[in-house]
Amino acid sequence: MQDPLPDGMGKGASKQVFDAIAPAKDVDGFHPENAGRLAQGRVTLAPCTPSGVIELLRREGIAMKGAEAVVIGRSDIVGKPMAMLLLAEDATVTICHSRTRDLAAHTTRADILVAAVGRPAFVTPEMVRPGATVIDVGINRVTDRASMQEWFGAESTRLASFDQKGSAVVGDVHPGVADVAGALTPVPGGVGPLTIAMLLKNTLTAARQRVSNS
Amino acid sequence: MQDPLPDGMGKGASKQVFDAIAPAKDVDGFHPENAGRLAQGRVTLAPCTPSGVIELLRREGIAMKGAEAVVIGRSDIVGKPMAMLLLAEDATVTICHSRTRDLAAHTTRADILVAAVGRPAFVTPEMVRPGATVIDVGINRVTDRASMQEWFGAESTRLASFDQKGSAVVGDVHPGVADVAGALTPVPGGVGPLTIAMLLKNTLTAARQRVSNS
Repeated sequence: MQDPLPDGMGKGASKQVFDAIAPAKDVDGFHPENAGRLAQGRVTLAPCTPSGVIELLRREGIAMKGAEAVVIGRSDIVGKPMAMLLLAEDATVTICHSRTRDLAAHTTRADILVAAVGRPAFVTPEMVRPGATVIDVGINRVTDRASMQEWFGAESTRLASFDQKGSAVVGDVHPGVADVAGALTPVPGGVGPLTIAMLLKNTLTAARQRVSNS
Repeated sequence: MQDPLPDGMGKGASKQVFDAIAPAKDVDGFHPENAGRLAQGRVTLAPCTPSGVIELLRREGIAMKGAEAVVIGRSDIVGKPMAMLLLAEDATVTICHSRTRDLAAHTTRADILVAAVGRPAFVTPEMVRPGATVIDVGINRVTDRASMQEWFGAESTRLASFDQKGSAVVGDVHPGVADVAGALTPVPGGVGPLTIAMLLKNTLTAARQRVSNS
């Protein structure tokens, strides 16, 4: 069962609904028992988006051990589990959020920067250390043409596509970051598809555990 | 039930034992379900040492919202739950550990520094920002007289006491930090007694919840 829940289930009821799922079948990794197992470094089913990010970092050969990792955002679904997974990989982890005083001071020292803010083009080039690995978890629907033109330029294919559709999906990371970062995940097509892949992986893990426990 | 477990229960078995305790009776806050509830910002029973630290910071009027908090140590019992509790208080939290590259660079920017390393006098004055609040969670038994003399001085009452007893309990924070920090918890007599108080508080909380659920 993926968040957000269907309309009929009531806003704000999601924790109640997720708590009612048996931890062994909780392929989203949202149940407190799974969140706790993750925090305690003995993951069984981890939330799909952050575990997709770890998979991506591993496959790209990005060093996590001893790396300075900065996570912007502290949601239960991305920010906090992301921090715990990076910590388990021996990164030094800082969790920033809306109350963080000098955000750029933190982001500019990150070797690995994860943006999970939910604000389009929020992370600007000045906030990124040259060569850093930047993971853009944001999926923001933008309907303002002026912003699109400012971020992507008047001649861009992204603006042309926007003009056709009347809206666009933009990440939390400003496109200009591509010139500064050593690596940057695109939006769309970056972390999103990995989330789905990890959901399938968790489903397989849960099924296997069920078989081995029966 | 307090960690470490009695000898007969086997080394390394503590997680198995703690997992077997009903979450509603888990007054140590070690069960994964309670660890997860804490990570998700809906604490019921939190580990006693970190929740004692929060209680202490609150009562001393130390501002946590927006503060730079640095936790050294990432144990399931102190470091990680401490980070989650400080995050819930709106601090910007960094978790450092044995793999952290430039530890002093992190500690010197901390408004609130929590040392949970398990190494006597590990945090030296140069590692502390003037005026910072330093929480010493370490409880280290020291039997080396030369170290005691180096840390506390030849004329100190601590050394005299050591000479009487043949050992002493020393925190993770070097005594010289007292001259730099704005506030520093002593060892012994600082965080330790609070841990016990929080254990009693958790016991009361668990009992009350049992009554209100029956």
